Amino acid sequence: MRTYGHRANNHPNAAARQLLETIDRKKTNLCVSVDVTRKADFLAIIDLVGPFSCLVKTHVDIIEDFDHDLIEQLQALSKKHDFLIFEDRKFADIGNTVSLQYSSGVHKIASWSHITNAHPVPGPSIITGLASVGKPLGRGLLLLAEMSTKGSLAVGSYTEEAVRMARANKDFVMGFIAQRRMDGVGVQEGGNSAEEEDFLILTPGVGLDVRGDGMGQQYRTPREVIVESGCDVIIVGRGIYGNPKALDADNVRRQAERYMKEGWKAYLERIGEK
Amino acid sequence: MRTYGHRANNHPNAAARQLLETIDRKKTNLCVSVDVTRKADFLAIIDLVGPFSCLVKTHVDIIEDFDHDLIEQLQALSKKHDFLIFEDRKFADIGNTVSLQYSSGVHKIASWSHITNAHPVPGPSIITGLASVGKPLGRGLLLLAEMSTKGSLAVGSYTEEAVRMARANKDFVMGFIAQRRMDGVGVQEGGNSAEEEDFLILTPGVGLDVRGDGMGQQYRTPREVIVESGCDVIIVGRGIYGNPKALDADNVRRQAERYMKEGWKAYLERIGEK
Repeated sequence: MRTYGHRANNHPNAAARQLLETIDRKKTNLCVSVDVTRKADFLAIIDLVGPFSCLVKTHVDIIEDFDHDLIEQLQALSKKHDFLIFEDRKFADIGNTVSLQYSSGVHKIASWSHITNAHPVPGPSIITGLASVGKPLGRGLLLLAEMSTKGSLAVGSYTEEAVRMARANKDFVMGFIAQRRMDGVGVQEGGNSAEEEDFLILTPGVGLDVRGDGMGQQYRTPREVIVESGCDVIIVGRGIYGNPKALDADNVRRQAERYMKEGWKAYLERIGEK
Repeated sequence: MRTYGHRANNHPNAAARQLLETIDRKKTNLCVSVDVTRKADFLAIIDLVGPFSCLVKTHVDIIEDFDHDLIEQLQALSKKHDFLIFEDRKFADIGNTVSLQYSSGVHKIASWSHITNAHPVPGPSIITGLASVGKPLGRGLLLLAEMSTKGSLAVGSYTEEAVRMARANKDFVMGFIAQRRMDGVGVQEGGNSAEEEDFLILTPGVGLDVRGDGMGQQYRTPREVIVESGCDVIIVGRGIYGNPKALDADNVRRQAERYMKEGWKAYLERIGEK
């Protein structure tokens, strides 16, 4: 397996290169998912976990008191702690609509989020619509090739089609939300080999202490995800910050550091430097 | 085929009953999709098309100057013209996240939108998450069983699973976004017949004058949709209001009336009263 640094030097996608460089520089493959509904909690958690993260994953559409100042403060934290921003919007509409959802509205996602994601279910036009907005800004798109929930329909030929759509749009699609590497998935007999491709795999549903949330989410450990399944970035949410209404700053920092170390240890094992 | 009125009297889902009653009372199966980015255009179009519509479909996340007053004015128009509101959010995340996206944030969709929709791709937990918010409010959910875009992955076993998920959650799932009736789809051999079910089918991609938008959307006529495919509601957008930056009020009204008449004529043909 190649190192993050080596891959950064060779990656054709600008946003992927930025993320790989950040991972290599900070020695962390941890993405913290911050799913809280109040601006103050949102910014407080990000300031705590920032030093340990390569990427912060947001759902700004759940924040009650979202405003322009929140975005300015988020961008300042991104600079202060050296992490990228990933709005987990899960776009899933037709090309014309997603181009407006990405660029416009109250949230103006494309103007501040380095990375976003989309479901492949509408077909290739969703990539065209998002790329028309994001490509000129140097943004990157992740396709949801798989999901970590029970009974997910992103399996089999659905996943294969997602990978084929990504291969046809490598200038904008930088990787996948998935549970495992996608090398060779969906390659048709007699088709081109997937040798030169280097899609990043970001994996949600990572936890060290519990196996599920009672609402369909299923958890795996950093080692299972990075070593056994060959993924690149672990996404951890409630496992790090717990109940946002009773934040314990020291514990949030401790948990972020713990996941960062577990993720990096797994990566060293994967590249044979254990 | 049963009439809208007959179905309204017998439907177990409150939001479905409301919609069927509105269709029957106003004699229109037209849903107008209002995809514009300015509040003034949004409200102006809805005031023009309201008299001809049973349902207005919104994407409030593309409106630059969205505020609480917009929702109050939208609700006033809904009362004035007697139509329901359908926020076309296409929820597509895990249960915990969609419950927050539906209830919270700047848009607070559940508090004003009678109907919303979701992709079945995360599995049944997406319905559980949304139902925890919407069911106590008497809201209804549509599952996206199919899409009208080129290369859509919502086909075959994906569509069948969507219908099975809906059957297991009839108290909250009132129907589908689809291109055809779903009676019998996904019924397993030896399984229960689908005789007693009455899912509403709402169909986007309806146009009288063009066949595509150059961004993957494909159009069919009201007659193809209602008579040939047995759908219940036609969803029409740009075909009615054209370019939102150059609104021609008389023409918007004329187009809305034209689609309303075409949709109703098709319905009368379907129930044999042509």
